[in-house]
Order: sequence, then C-alpha cells, then structure tokens
Amino acid sequence: MSEDFQDWMASVQARMETALAQCLPLTGIAARLHEAMRYAALGGGKRVRPLLVFAAGELVAAKEEALLACALAVELIHTYSLVHDDLPAMDNDTLRRGRPTCHVEFDEATALLVGDALQTRAFELLAAPGLIAPARQLELLATLARASGSLGMAGGQAVDLASVGKTLNQPELELMHTMKTGSLIRAAVFLGAGCGKAALSATRQTQLDRFAKRAGLLFQVIDDLLDCTASTATLGKTAGKDKAADKPTCVSLMGLAAARGYAESLRHEALQSLAGFGAKAGRLIALTNFICARKF
Amino acid sequence: MSEDFQDWMASVQARMETALAQCLPLTGIAARLHEAMRYAALGGGKRVRPLLVFAAGELVAAKEEALLACALAVELIHTYSLVHDDLPAMDNDTLRRGRPTCHVEFDEATALLVGDALQTRAFELLAAPGLIAPARQLELLATLARASGSLGMAGGQAVDLASVGKTLNQPELELMHTMKTGSLIRAAVFLGAGCGKAALSATRQTQLDRFAKRAGLLFQVIDDLLDCTASTATLGKTAGKDKAADKPTCVSLMGLAAARGYAESLRHEALQSLAGFGAKAGRLIALTNFICARKF
Repeated sequence: MSEDFQDWMASVQARMETALAQCLPLTGIAARLHEAMRYAALGGGKRVRPLLVFAAGELVAAKEEALLACALAVELIHTYSLVHDDLPAMDNDTLRRGRPTCHVEFDEATALLVGDALQTRAFELLAAPGLIAPARQLELLATLARASGSLGMAGGQAVDLASVGKTLNQPELELMHTMKTGSLIRAAVFLGAGCGKAALSATRQTQLDRFAKRAGLLFQVIDDLLDCTASTATLGKTAGKDKAADKPTCVSLMGLAAARGYAESLRHEALQSLAGFGAKAGRLIALTNFICARKF
Repeated sequence: MSEDFQDWMASVQARMETALAQCLPLTGIAARLHEAMRYAALGGGKRVRPLLVFAAGELVAAKEEALLACALAVELIHTYSLVHDDLPAMDNDTLRRGRPTCHVEFDEATALLVGDALQTRAFELLAAPGLIAPARQLELLATLARASGSLGMAGGQAVDLASVGKTLNQPELELMHTMKTGSLIRAAVFLGAGCGKAALSATRQTQLDRFAKRAGLLFQVIDDLLDCTASTATLGKTAGKDKAADKPTCVSLMGLAAARGYAESLRHEALQSLAGFGAKAGRLIALTNFICARKF
C-alpha cells in the first residue's frame, strides 16, 4: 500500500469523522437518542463506502461538497444497518468496532430509534439543495434507496436470517451477498461517479458497475474469510460468529483455500473492469487492493 | 359529515389501498419480508395523512400523480413507525387495526426489517422522476425526512418512552406530541400544498402551517381521549394503554372534560387559519371536523 494512498485514506476518514459529527444533532431534546446516534456513527470504522464514493468521484472530477453528502448518506445507511443487525432479535451481537454495541451501551428501544433516525438523516442529507443538478440528485437518492431497501440490503438481511442452518449453493450465497453487502457498495460507486458535471458514457457506466459488483462480492468474501481467521481483538467485533450461528459463508461452502483463490479472482476481474478509465482510476485500484488485503 | 365528503374520503382510501398494493413488491426473493411489509401496510387504516395530502393539494390544484407519491411516502413512514413502535422493546403492543401486530403475526426480526424497508421505500417513491419540478421535489423529500427523524417523529417517540411514569406540564406534553404526531401531519399538509405548479405565497404558507400545527395537536388530543373512552373493539388497538403504561397524556394532565374543551378550541383555531383560502379549503375543513369527531 503506497504512502500516498495511506495518506489519502486517512484524510478521507478524518473528513468523514468531522462531517459525521457536524451532521448529527447534539440537542437538549431527545438527548439520549442523539447521544446514541453519535455513539453509533462516530469513533472509527474503516469507512470503506465513503472511500469508494470519493474514489469513484475522481473518475469524473466531482464536486467535493456533493461527494461528501453522498459519502455521509451511504455511511449513515450502513451504520443504521449495523445497529439494527446487532439487535437481539437479529444477530444479537455485543461488540462492534471494539466497543459495546448500541443496544448494550444504551438500550434496545434507543438502538431501534437510532437506526431509524440514522436512515432518515441519510436521505435528508442527500436531499440538501444545490449539490448537483436536482434531477440527477433525485436519481442518486432513488438509487441509494433501492440499494438499501427490501430488494437490496434489508432484503439481504432477511435472506441471511432465513439461511441460518441451511446449505446454500454458490448462486444462492452470491445472491444473498449481492443484496446484503454488494448493493450498498455498488450504490456508493454509482453515487460517487454520479457527482460529476457530465454523466459517464453508457459504456463507462457499464464497466464501472461491473467493477462495483465484483468489489462488493470481494468485500464480502474477505469478510467471510476474516470471520474464520482473525481474532475478535483485531476485528473489533466477535470473530467466528458465522460458524457459531451456523450461517452459510464462502468458507463453509468452498473451504478456506478456495475462498482465498476466489477473492483473488474477484480482485483481478474488478481491476480489469477499470482498464478503460486510465490514471483516473488510481484510487479505485488501490482501494480494491486494500479491500482484498485488509486484516480487519 | 356530508355525503360528498364521505364519498371523497372513501375514494381516497380506496385509491391508497390500490396504490400501496402496487408499490410494495411481491417477489420470490425475501418473500416473507415482502409478505410482512404488505401485511403491515395494507388492509385498512383511516389514511388520515394521505387524506391531508390530497385535501391540501386542492388548495393549489395539484397534479394527481405527485399527490399520490407524497401520500404514499407519508403513509409508509407512518406505517413503519407503527410497526417499530409496537415492538416489545418499545410499546409492546399485540393488536393494531383489529389484527395481530406485525411482530406477532411474523416475528421480531421480520418486523424490524419491515419498518426499515418501508421507510426506505417511502423515500424511494418520493424520489421518482418527473413528479414536479426536481428542486421542489427535493425540498418536499427533505421536509418529510426532517419531520420523521430525530428532531421530529422518531425523536418524539424517544421522548415518549422517556416520559413514562413522569408528570409533564402542558408545554412539555405539547412538545412531545408536536414531535411524535404533529410533525408528520404538518409534513403531509406541506407536501400536498407543495405539489402545485406555483408555490403558495409566504402569507398563505404561514396560515397553512398554522392550520397544520393545530390539526396535528388536535389529532393527538383526540387520540388521548379515545384511549380513555373507547373500547379495544372500536379502536382496533388496545384501549386504555396510556393509563396502563403510566404515560402522560392530555387527559391525565387536564382531565376528560377540559381535554374535550381543548380539542374544540384547537379545531376552532385550525379552521380560523384556513379563512383566507376560501372554497378551496373545503376538504381541509371537513377533514378537520372528521378528525375531531372520529370515534376510532
């Protein structure tokens, strides 16, 4: 990982932390709810989806302000999903980013409202006036909604819950991953590239979407691998929980070595899809390598 | 209640039922989640917020398609809030619209995802292309988000949960009601009137907002009254639950007779605010009288 890329990543992460702190209210009304929203959203996270938004924005020389709004919206949607997925009725997790999960630190009712209100705030931020051409902005917002709704992320979580104890074949497993994780990653790339003055050509859009689908799957395969091979301390969340919950994963389906090989082939395909973009794709390429090599 | 108003109300309710059925997917993927979303959203409800959208739309001769999108979005937000509020971690209710609540009929995890995905679908529908001028559409969407987020509806629910067992004074109680119930009703009126070709004048907008605030409070005062005076069979939800849960309400604060008088004065003030709109406000006037006289 080049020093330049590391610096860029750290600067995006720092910008996100500041912007998240600024966009989440800190008020006397519903003070505990607002405190819990900040607890869930601030204090770390790799910010992979915001990094994808900014990296995709480099393809089109996008406006910083619009990219930041998209990055915040995508990250808030991701954060809301973590808070709700961690609830006892869902995955019942107690550790996230090295700290107690939101419902453990606060309470279940608050965590439920935190997720609800973070989702709302995401769409509110993306509806701010003057970011890009309004019709395009509506399109980006609709894309984020579609990606995170019942045919995307939320639907994927439903499939995930229903798949506990079952053996899925590879197409079934990939459909679940595509919905649960892939759709939001794909949306992040689409939003970043949608912030340029001009739209990408249809060919470039197709290539970029092909990249985004591979990157999304890659992210999830690595997640499956890390769940098996990394420690709770390194991950900041409970390790080994897929196996403990008897959830089908890439590793349970194909074994560790084959899953590693599959990740490598996804990385390769993702990078191939970027060939037509030239030097502008530098950040996306480095980010893909980071996603593949990450240790947490 | 005039026959004409009754017919209009029935026609809006029927149109909403059809449109909700059309806008909620029925797919093989995440089938149980989609079934549960339809269970929560279809099969009745007074559709007060959609009625407000359509009635406010008459002030500005709004386009039917835009009004329908706004009405659907507001109703889906309302429905998501009911599904989540009914969960065991929140109000723990088992009966809604005369049927088992969503988590009782399905399960908690599904009900959680139902609420999440209904909220997402609301914003997706309101971001559809070509409804009204895109910049205005973004403004309506941002308004709905603000009204339903942590400084509006979701925040109001947090305050409501925190107020159990406490005695609130009237300003505190009204702030809670304004957030929890009033903000979405106010947004419904704003969205309906925002679907016209031209925006209302600043004066008319202020008058209409004054109306909407009174109508929202009126709705909640009547809700408090009905919780004390109506039966579970009539309400289709558990009666007497405010008292059982030791929640502060208008009735616990001022007594039945004074709460009735207060409702009447809110109705009067609401209607006064509409004076400048002439005959175009006919539906809003009749709807206000309906909200005040409703028995469930």
